[in-house]
Amino acid sequence: MVIFTKIAVVGLGNAGLPLAAVIADSGQSVVGVDIDRHRCERINRGENPIPQEAGLDQLLKMHGGQSLLATADFSDAASCTVFIVIVPLFVDDMFNPDFCILESAFRSVGSILKEGDLVVLETTVPPGTTDDKVRSWLQSASGLSSGQFFLAYSPERIMTGYSISRLREFPKVIGGADQESGIAAYQVYRQFIPNLKLVSSARVAEMIKVMEGCYRDVNIALANELYRIAEELGVDFAEARAQANHPYCHIHLPSTGVGGHCIPVYPWFLIREMERRECFDRCRLLRLAREQNDLMIDHWAQRILLECMRVDKPLGQVRICVKGITYRQGVKEFHHSRNLALAHLLAKKGLDARAWDELLSKEEVEAKGLRWMLPEDADIVFDSFELEIRLR
Amino acid sequence: MVIFTKIAVVGLGNAGLPLAAVIADSGQSVVGVDIDRHRCERINRGENPIPQEAGLDQLLKMHGGQSLLATADFSDAASCTVFIVIVPLFVDDMFNPDFCILESAFRSVGSILKEGDLVVLETTVPPGTTDDKVRSWLQSASGLSSGQFFLAYSPERIMTGYSISRLREFPKVIGGADQESGIAAYQVYRQFIPNLKLVSSARVAEMIKVMEGCYRDVNIALANELYRIAEELGVDFAEARAQANHPYCHIHLPSTGVGGHCIPVYPWFLIREMERRECFDRCRLLRLAREQNDLMIDHWAQRILLECMRVDKPLGQVRICVKGITYRQGVKEFHHSRNLALAHLLAKKGLDARAWDELLSKEEVEAKGLRWMLPEDADIVFDSFELEIRLR
Repeated sequence: MVIFTKIAVVGLGNAGLPLAAVIADSGQSVVGVDIDRHRCERINRGENPIPQEAGLDQLLKMHGGQSLLATADFSDAASCTVFIVIVPLFVDDMFNPDFCILESAFRSVGSILKEGDLVVLETTVPPGTTDDKVRSWLQSASGLSSGQFFLAYSPERIMTGYSISRLREFPKVIGGADQESGIAAYQVYRQFIPNLKLVSSARVAEMIKVMEGCYRDVNIALANELYRIAEELGVDFAEARAQANHPYCHIHLPSTGVGGHCIPVYPWFLIREMERRECFDRCRLLRLAREQNDLMIDHWAQRILLECMRVDKPLGQVRICVKGITYRQGVKEFHHSRNLALAHLLAKKGLDARAWDELLSKEEVEAKGLRWMLPEDADIVFDSFELEIRLR
Repeated sequence: MVIFTKIAVVGLGNAGLPLAAVIADSGQSVVGVDIDRHRCERINRGENPIPQEAGLDQLLKMHGGQSLLATADFSDAASCTVFIVIVPLFVDDMFNPDFCILESAFRSVGSILKEGDLVVLETTVPPGTTDDKVRSWLQSASGLSSGQFFLAYSPERIMTGYSISRLREFPKVIGGADQESGIAAYQVYRQFIPNLKLVSSARVAEMIKVMEGCYRDVNIALANELYRIAEELGVDFAEARAQANHPYCHIHLPSTGVGGHCIPVYPWFLIREMERRECFDRCRLLRLAREQNDLMIDHWAQRILLECMRVDKPLGQVRICVKGITYRQGVKEFHHSRNLALAHLLAKKGLDARAWDELLSKEEVEAKGLRWMLPEDADIVFDSFELEIRLR
């Protein structure tokens, strides 16, 4: 059975664009909505704005401006019957989610929503968001009542660089705000997602995605703790980890902490909700893992300081280069970057700490409030991805 | 190259006996030493004292009393050149390891140790034990100096019921107290351990085993925390977990906590050592995971109490049956059993809590300080393995 629908994908960012391209490639007609007009024009010319995304070039060359039409204007999606929303959810300085982008997107969808349409959210959100917030935004903007449209949630599980293969191979879950919505959403999605699993509710689907992030964060905190214990005991952690891991043991890699828009953020979705409900004892491990990961920059600052004492110069004159300040190697992004925070921490301690990054120009480093320097001009280089301190 | 040796295995318990049998089955001559004379006699008659251990029956029938000779007398092992020690290490009430059994075993080995002999420890121990304690016990009991005998560490990775297949298939690590010891031990072990990996030191090998336990404990604590969050949010944790897990996500099962001789103990090996070194900030996650797992009985007590309020009886007269008080289903052991602790906790709160266990008689339940009752006679049954509270 093929269901003829016209699908709108709202948000053509790193997660939304690969999804829109895969849907178009399945033979569906897709309207992609994004506030970035320039990006829309490029997509319609068949250009790929995410070159690191394997396979996306080819899909956009084939479908951009054809079966995938990008637009900045919601009214161009008015004839669609399925609306997939995949826009960012940011958090404030206290890690409280800021729903304004989501609300704006859903109110725009609501303004063109018709009876019988299906709306699916893909952005990772605190469990309960679809049932509570999204439903009420849509109702108030559309004037429709709850039973007059279908509403579901299906978390994106992409990974930059592998998004196309993730969509085509990796298991994807979908859950409805009610049973009919779940079934309707499943029937639409299975036309372009081969490995799809219908779960009992939107809330369960939301929880699934957040739990994955919590697993990662807590296990990175554990790896960092075991790394520091091994250091104290004079044990090579990398060697121990390599042999400790087997099909029932998955000790993660140590790091300077956890950066990016995902893993350091998702645990807070649960922590803040538990705090709001005064269930302080139900989120202690998630909270401590967050804290310990964030404190890893203090550990590295101490290690670097100890190394500085071996240089035959007054401490304030030892030239320190932090090599790598993006949050992850090979990705030019800074959100919650612990490497960037480490460079600032060292400078704040009064040390002559500067930075270098293979992805950044001198000006780009300086725009982050740091001084730039070549690693070869430093007395001490801290490689934040390899976790190596080199005395030159 | 076959090295002709006579191997002593010291400790014929659940871990030592399968190892001794596998070594005998590889064609080596083995002397098994155990303080339990009755157990030795049974083994020498070809009887299997661990019936739940798949494949052990056959090995003992073939080799017991033949190439595997069990004895309670260390002098019977005097002609051996390899000594493998695999005796229990218990902890006291404050989870400080009590080395007295290990020390006694090594001093006995030391009393018959000859120049050129190899000693290998298999018991899970705090990193550094082989280098420091074991070496000095052997030296003082044998009168030999450090370089006159070989010393190594190879942690057992058995699992009751699967020990034979674990020894024959699962990767096993071995590390020497010095380089020569590592190589000598590797050459002996690879004659009966097909999947063997030489690591750089005994200390690394010790750390590997302890880290595995820490991974398990922290991940069980995480599962318990996510379980309680899901409960608060009205999400079916089992469903969410089933779909969250994939090749990069391994969320564990929730429980009443963690019992047994292994997982609840190993994290303390690192915690206590870090505390001794005043590195309190290097073990916070391990400590909290221990605490949260141990506190799970309070969570279940609360859940049971809420259920009691639905019974039309005064609270103190509601008949509660805790079904399952051993530390793990199907294993008749109580060490650090949280299920047993939960039954006691409920009784201490003044509730009419009694216990039933499929592996235990009425007398055996009563010997644990609990009153016995059939589940069908209770108003409320808590199944401690299924985590189900049933109102009857």
